[in-house]
Amino acid sequence: MKISARNVLKGKVVSVEKGATTAHVKIEIASGQVVTSAITNEAVDSLGLTVGGDAYAVIKSSDVMIAVD
Amino acid sequence: MKISARNVLKGKVVSVEKGATTAHVKIEIASGQVVTSAITNEAVDSLGLTVGGDAYAVIKSSDVMIAVD
Amino acid sequence: MKISARNVLKGKVVSVEKGATTAHVKIEIASGQVVTSAITNEAVDSLGLTVGGDAYAVIKSSDVMIAVD
Amino acid sequence: MKISARNVLKGKVVSVEKGATTAHVKIEIASGQVVTSAITNEAVDSLGLTVGGDAYAVIKSSDVMIAVD
Amino acid sequence: MKISARNVLKGKVVSVEKGATTAHVKIEIASGQVVTSAITNEAVDSLGLTVGGDAYAVIKSSDVMIAVD
Amino acid sequence: MKISARNVLKGKVVSVEKGATTAHVKIEIASGQVVTSAITNEAVDSLGLTVGGDAYAVIKSSDVMIAVD
Repeated sequence: MKISARNVLKGKVVSVEKGATTAHVKIEIASGQVVTSAITNEAVDSLGLTVGGDAYAVIKSSDVMIAVD
Repeated sequence: MKISARNVLKGKVVSVEKGATTAHVKIEIASGQVVTSAITNEAVDSLGLTVGGDAYAVIKSSDVMIAVD
Repeated sequence: MKISARNVLKGKVVSVEKGATTAHVKIEIASGQVVTSAITNEAVDSLGLTVGGDAYAVIKSSDVMIAVD
Repeated sequence: MKISARNVLKGKVVSVEKGATTAHVKIEIASGQVVTSAITNEAVDSLGLTVGGDAYAVIKSSDVMIAVD
Repeated sequence: MKISARNVLKGKVVSVEKGATTAHVKIEIASGQVVTSAITNEAVDSLGLTVGGDAYAVIKSSDVMIAVD
Repeated sequence: MKISARNVLKGKVVSVEKGATTAHVKIEIASGQVVTSAITNEAVDSLGLTVGGDAYAVIKSSDVMIAVD
């Protein structure tokens, strides 16, 4: 599957924390650069996400803001 | 200002393309890893974004999906 | 690629309208039920979207609201 | 109330699962086509959502991605 | 129609700027407090939005971030 | 830090409710006008959010819908 989302960042799962319905998954996409994702517990199970596994952080461009100092 | 968004990725602006109302800004957050953002033209002007400048890509965790091969 | 987004609705592209930077793509996911998507022109080109082609509308659960009459 | 969101898909509630703060609600919008929504528990109560009730899945166009095989 | 989005802020339209496909609409929700919205041109026409008219800014809770100084 | 999000609404925190992973924070941005935000518990801790404190609700324009009666 090829997706319209312009941001597909390859990395490794460094943590998976399930809540009651919402899970937080962290992916290291570059040395020391970790991206946090909030997805459904159901998705964690469906994708079989576990610490150490390969995964992508996928982000639609309209969800990316820019900031400057 | 400190923000609740868990993802604040430092980088350099590599392109700014203004449309009629919506602009696309690309930021290189690691060697070869570019993030695309769609923001208002107004924000581009307000932040004074130009190619080569330092900037952050800011993304709320609930806007980050995960994918696996 | 398998994605965490819980909503992957199969359909056919019924229109593609490019703007200056943002395109609107409509997909018929069931008889008479059309979903409108706003994506980058760049994504339209990258995916080679054309009227009549098969495609999926992909939506993260946290972006779906519920309404009642 | 008439809303700017271009996607208002009529269906029936097929499940409501409350978490600690976030609920997952599933709506069948066509035979066999189910949409998953993550909303606040507070919204579930405010709308009186129960299995079998009529409801709409409402999605802003800028939150719809497109994918192809 | 009653919606799950927890934020429905009443105000008056103070500007409507159409782009090629995306429009920017500004609503004053309190004295001096203006909210900017990016929606489709199609939605502007469908809702008949004009300067001076009553309107609501509607925002899903999961799209609201918090910041502190 | 200066952000591209066009909506930065100053107010006071009126409630903080932590869930298993997701917290709901309410901010009064004008007399009687309260905005609800769903953010990670981690962000609540990181920002040190407590009832009565000053805070901003930050919203990207593309996440604001418009409705009319």
